[in-house]
Amino acid sequence: MMYDVVIIGGGPAGLTAGIYTKRAMLKALLLEKTGVGGQIIVTDLVENFPGFQEISGADLAKKFEEHAQKFGLETKSMVEVSGIEDKGKTKLVKTSEGDIEAKAVIIATGTTPRKLGARGELDFIGRGVSYCATCDGFFFREKVVVVVGGGDSAITEAIFLTKMAKKVYVVHRRDKLRAEKINQEHAFANPKISFVWDSVVEEIAGKNVVEKVIIRNVKTNATSEIKTDGVFIYVGLIPNTAFANVKKDEWGFIIPNDKMETSVRGIFVAGDCRVTPLRQIATAVGDGAIAAVSAERYIEEISA
Amino acid sequence: MMYDVVIIGGGPAGLTAGIYTKRAMLKALLLEKTGVGGQIIVTDLVENFPGFQEISGADLAKKFEEHAQKFGLETKSMVEVSGIEDKGKTKLVKTSEGDIEAKAVIIATGTTPRKLGARGELDFIGRGVSYCATCDGFFFREKVVVVVGGGDSAITEAIFLTKMAKKVYVVHRRDKLRAEKINQEHAFANPKISFVWDSVVEEIAGKNVVEKVIIRNVKTNATSEIKTDGVFIYVGLIPNTAFANVKKDEWGFIIPNDKMETSVRGIFVAGDCRVTPLRQIATAVGDGAIAAVSAERYIEEISA
Repeated sequence: MMYDVVIIGGGPAGLTAGIYTKRAMLKALLLEKTGVGGQIIVTDLVENFPGFQEISGADLAKKFEEHAQKFGLETKSMVEVSGIEDKGKTKLVKTSEGDIEAKAVIIATGTTPRKLGARGELDFIGRGVSYCATCDGFFFREKVVVVVGGGDSAITEAIFLTKMAKKVYVVHRRDKLRAEKINQEHAFANPKISFVWDSVVEEIAGKNVVEKVIIRNVKTNATSEIKTDGVFIYVGLIPNTAFANVKKDEWGFIIPNDKMETSVRGIFVAGDCRVTPLRQIATAVGDGAIAAVSAERYIEEISA
Repeated sequence: MMYDVVIIGGGPAGLTAGIYTKRAMLKALLLEKTGVGGQIIVTDLVENFPGFQEISGADLAKKFEEHAQKFGLETKSMVEVSGIEDKGKTKLVKTSEGDIEAKAVIIATGTTPRKLGARGELDFIGRGVSYCATCDGFFFREKVVVVVGGGDSAITEAIFLTKMAKKVYVVHRRDKLRAEKINQEHAFANPKISFVWDSVVEEIAGKNVVEKVIIRNVKTNATSEIKTDGVFIYVGLIPNTAFANVKKDEWGFIIPNDKMETSVRGIFVAGDCRVTPLRQIATAVGDGAIAAVSAERYIEEISA
């Protein structure tokens, strides 16, 4: 059984690629490691995908899935991909359910935010714990938030959060930042930001929503607490691309051109797992559409 | 009155930029030449914006507009922009209602499809006449369609349409194509495509929907008709960018980097009016989000 396109990953990018490949009358199969939906299904409230003023991530994922199914997209859940063998005009997608042949592959496997490992962290996701200030910052107007991390993402997002929050604490395990100098200067100059150096978050606590974090100074071992409404965690984003033998940056994000072509002809990428200036549902659907149209043109090219 | 961001154009790209700038707590103003909505308001049925299985372009535009308004986006209709004066940290947007000052500008003015000028063309838009096969091709499964044009868009879309339509006529005013050689070869080899050379469409006719086109051979002046369900017109796309003094390609499409920055610092671009491999609602919303976040970071940078 030869597919035109195998799409790996069932988040917004993969499902949009599914809609576009099916509307282009291609034989397409979407593989998903767990269930369809991707990272957004753990998102409590989405306010910034145009057309939906307020929707839960799970409901939006369901709408995307139904939309793709309407056009007959075949999907398989609980299938793990371990590699893609490039046989020229055919790609062999190696999976936990055996090999699948396709003319083109679209990688839309997303990222996994690196967890702090603090007590309570997982319990409060969507109830004060967030991994995306662009997504969730607006919910913290006139509130107090803690940002954990010292890299560029942590610092630019801390600055961003000062536009909404009345107070932003940056908790960092070292005594200096890794972020670009200019970002550091802006953060130091910002009166709403306070730095808590040499410290790690040990626990995130509250009744129904986050109320405080307990931090430990790694030099003195002293613990203290900060009362806060939110905790934004920026300690790294892991692209789910280990299986893919295409060109990536030093962190593992796949490097595409503007047509979402990767370094291997016939393998395309879409969404959060690529090198990109922004990771949002709005950008993922754009990527998915482009990857699908590029895959369609590629298949036409090799078929003639 | 100084705005943080002036957004020029109220289609999906501009309205998404509006949602994102307002959620970033920026003072933003959206200017629109006619009414809000953009090119999609003339689209009868949209099936490929994820989350909405079937929606009219006008209804989708309304949802985008309401979404932006919910976050307090200020909009002005019936305002024509004639230029942007770059005064460094301030931009002066020259409009039919006077000058407007802003720290950053997002250009999201879209394109205008070049019209054939055939009788009936405008009457049948959305009822058989289309300017986008990726958008509307799926509605013509097992039908007959006419493609007008001889460039790369016309020919790649004619090939694309053979996947749905049972027959595709390509009507071209010359006796050879301008499209890339490889596209020509694929089109000539495709048994579903017939070429009608040296011919122009004089009239598109039907009762409620398109039923036929009347063509005239420009060498013999003889007229004839082709029975058809659809007419896809690919005689050029005009970017609405004449007012903008930023780097463009030879056709006037604005050249951005991946952050949607143009050649002028503080001026950003989003959507159809930029150089891009695909012009869809899905890609426009991605662009709008990126342009807004880039504008926000730029304003932070110049403000410190």
